[in-house]
Amino acid sequence: MTAHADSTRIRHLLTLEGLPRETIAGLLERAEAVLPHAHGGTAKRGVLAGKAVCTLFFEPSTRTRSSFQLAAMRLGADVLDFNAASSSSKKGESDADTLRTLEAMGVQGFVVRHARDGAVAELASIAGDGTSLVNAGDGRHAHPTQGLLDMLTLRQAKGPDFGRLKVLIVGDVKHSRVARSDLHALRTLGAGEIRVCGPSALLPEPGVLEGCTVTTDLDAALDGVDAVMALRLQHERMESGLVSSLEDYRRDYGLSARRLRIAAADAVVMHPGPMNRGVEIDADVADGPQSRILSQVANGVAVRMAVLEALLARA
Amino acid sequence: MTAHADSTRIRHLLTLEGLPRETIAGLLERAEAVLPHAHGGTAKRGVLAGKAVCTLFFEPSTRTRSSFQLAAMRLGADVLDFNAASSSSKKGESDADTLRTLEAMGVQGFVVRHARDGAVAELASIAGDGTSLVNAGDGRHAHPTQGLLDMLTLRQAKGPDFGRLKVLIVGDVKHSRVARSDLHALRTLGAGEIRVCGPSALLPEPGVLEGCTVTTDLDAALDGVDAVMALRLQHERMESGLVSSLEDYRRDYGLSARRLRIAAADAVVMHPGPMNRGVEIDADVADGPQSRILSQVANGVAVRMAVLEALLARA
Amino acid sequence: MTAHADSTRIRHLLTLEGLPRETIAGLLERAEAVLPHAHGGTAKRGVLAGKAVCTLFFEPSTRTRSSFQLAAMRLGADVLDFNAASSSSKKGESDADTLRTLEAMGVQGFVVRHARDGAVAELASIAGDGTSLVNAGDGRHAHPTQGLLDMLTLRQAKGPDFGRLKVLIVGDVKHSRVARSDLHALRTLGAGEIRVCGPSALLPEPGVLEGCTVTTDLDAALDGVDAVMALRLQHERMESGLVSSLEDYRRDYGLSARRLRIAAADAVVMHPGPMNRGVEIDADVADGPQSRILSQVANGVAVRMAVLEALLARA
Repeated sequence: MTAHADSTRIRHLLTLEGLPRETIAGLLERAEAVLPHAHGGTAKRGVLAGKAVCTLFFEPSTRTRSSFQLAAMRLGADVLDFNAASSSSKKGESDADTLRTLEAMGVQGFVVRHARDGAVAELASIAGDGTSLVNAGDGRHAHPTQGLLDMLTLRQAKGPDFGRLKVLIVGDVKHSRVARSDLHALRTLGAGEIRVCGPSALLPEPGVLEGCTVTTDLDAALDGVDAVMALRLQHERMESGLVSSLEDYRRDYGLSARRLRIAAADAVVMHPGPMNRGVEIDADVADGPQSRILSQVANGVAVRMAVLEALLARA
Repeated sequence: MTAHADSTRIRHLLTLEGLPRETIAGLLERAEAVLPHAHGGTAKRGVLAGKAVCTLFFEPSTRTRSSFQLAAMRLGADVLDFNAASSSSKKGESDADTLRTLEAMGVQGFVVRHARDGAVAELASIAGDGTSLVNAGDGRHAHPTQGLLDMLTLRQAKGPDFGRLKVLIVGDVKHSRVARSDLHALRTLGAGEIRVCGPSALLPEPGVLEGCTVTTDLDAALDGVDAVMALRLQHERMESGLVSSLEDYRRDYGLSARRLRIAAADAVVMHPGPMNRGVEIDADVADGPQSRILSQVANGVAVRMAVLEALLARA
Repeated sequence: MTAHADSTRIRHLLTLEGLPRETIAGLLERAEAVLPHAHGGTAKRGVLAGKAVCTLFFEPSTRTRSSFQLAAMRLGADVLDFNAASSSSKKGESDADTLRTLEAMGVQGFVVRHARDGAVAELASIAGDGTSLVNAGDGRHAHPTQGLLDMLTLRQAKGPDFGRLKVLIVGDVKHSRVARSDLHALRTLGAGEIRVCGPSALLPEPGVLEGCTVTTDLDAALDGVDAVMALRLQHERMESGLVSSLEDYRRDYGLSARRLRIAAADAVVMHPGPMNRGVEIDADVADGPQSRILSQVANGVAVRMAVLEALLARA
């Protein structure tokens, strides 16, 4: 890293909120640079050789965990998986003691997922000096590497000048840590217009939507946008009565080929996965030429390599 | 591989059915060549260095997964375990999306187990260009690496000329993917006589038994055979009423020391494991001098190394 | 190892009971020597390169398994995790067949945990020639690497002359394999005085307490001791009626700051984890300046590296 980059150095990655533009841009540049080595090869194998990275998931998630594990392996780290949902936690050990125990074993990098908002930041606040945490999703609060990989995907598709872009986030924004991290990053990178659309019951408190154009009408929201970020609809939303039926949701908020034609002709479609095909997104859109969904996944490994390297490869 | 061998090159290994004799023989030769490196050492560590292999099990199996994991590690691959039974699949993601997601992360080799017949071939049909799948067992359909390791074990014991051999498969052939893959391989390699024995309720549809001598009388079936392949009796068979009791099954179809004496004096005994000792096989037979059961396990790692190398180490 | 050390060479590590003093001291010296490499770095990476180590847990334990996995990875071994609780065992396979199967796959080192006393020694008795087992805890019987890491922690704090030390073990000694292994090691290393304290219902049979000063009065037991080893109280003890309530237990046997002042001014506090803060140990003691609890965890990795190297790195 250059001397300048040092000034934006971060120890943990807990949220994108409040991160300086240069820090976010710097991580995206690192990720682009690492991309040729993100899906195989041994070029970056020495970066974290002899260091241990632990995926510490207090809430299960196989996809995100796999992406981080591959990122850490490709940097040469020893990778430990600590399934906190089925471990000492059940024996009454506090989350903090679990973290401290793994630190004492020499683990320096922690990739932490937790069901509770702010739980990862709490763990970071008691972490030892040599330890770095990456938030892999906490409650509804933040999922910063997802935010970064979404920005990288947007940048690849549309270029680095976010000021020209109209971006739409559609779906269950209320419960989505992905949406929150995307909103933080889009604002910081100066997106030209940020639109948010979803049924009233799934829109978040106003503070989350600061600076966004908000509507419950998807056709209106799609008009001329350069990118549509569809969110996963958790099945719990039906059970809790926030959504009346999958059919109604699809009719009003599902991204169909017909609707996508309202967006700009070269608009790209994104989704954090796993998808409910035929609910929030139709199969022909997910698999269509405008979809960048698999690019998001591919970028995820590069972003996570860049983040782990930035946090852990310091001298 | 030689130029000739190229003509038998395979991209996926989904079943042994229909594979040319040279392909099967070529894989067995590769496995024999790799055997000295299959149980330790670092000689083959460079073969898949920088490539990622994922065990993608939609149905649990610790033994087969461990064998593939060791094979991949000994070839130097990064090994990812994706437990699809407890993952995004539960969140409604399609199997195809799970595969595509892992492909997008840069995984090139997939070892797939699935409860449904044909599910692995379906996944292979939508796999990306650079991806290879190995069927680690799908429903009752096929378990090709088990078939290959059984052939390697037979060859070690009896030599390469299968035309002289009388081989007996005994047990629950109806529900056995192992039996189906063994039958495919035995036919292709030209086994002299293939006998199949089991209670009527556990015999498969006639097509499966093409070319076999079929009987429900184990003593008759054993007469003079060179190899006995006993199959595991799943406990579900009792619950579903296909087998009246373990005691009856053992009496009629259990491989005992007394019965084994009906076979050729140098007959070998095989079993795919895990064994129900005292049901389909007696302990003194399983542990006796004619047993090749642990050789099968040892050969399994070599066969899987050979297969992974053949599929993934192309330039 | 020197020629002399060869005479104390062990093949398995099943218990500390009966091990010669030189063997225990030799393992502690190895662990101290390996400590600078125990928490990162690649210096020892060649020791077990090309060898496979399997964590074979018939009873779940995430902490101990993680410690062994990191130890094995830092020695360069291929590490296989075989969760025997959710595997073939459920399919009726015997523990012995599971071990033999993994041996046949080329695994040479086994780290075994089992709920039943003596189960690991039984497996060791049928293990093949090239195989070594480490007992990672069997029933109430033994947990030898925990005993060793506790001795290493004591030695770091108090020096190598155990003859001057008064050591107290407090809590549920009856059900504790940790206590048994600590007692074996303390006796062999010649601890000056060994005190044991706990409620009558949680004191073990007299043979276990040979040579110990036993009391049910914690204040009396603490008087002037150099080290206090608190044991975890399993919640099952309440359910089975052996302990009336957590409040009562804490009042009578919880290690509080007030009580700790009865011990020597420089007494150290140890606990094998996971802790029930506010039950057997108060938070301010666990986190206080006399606590060596995280040192125990750190030493655990070094001890396990030393043990795996001693057992598996023979020529």
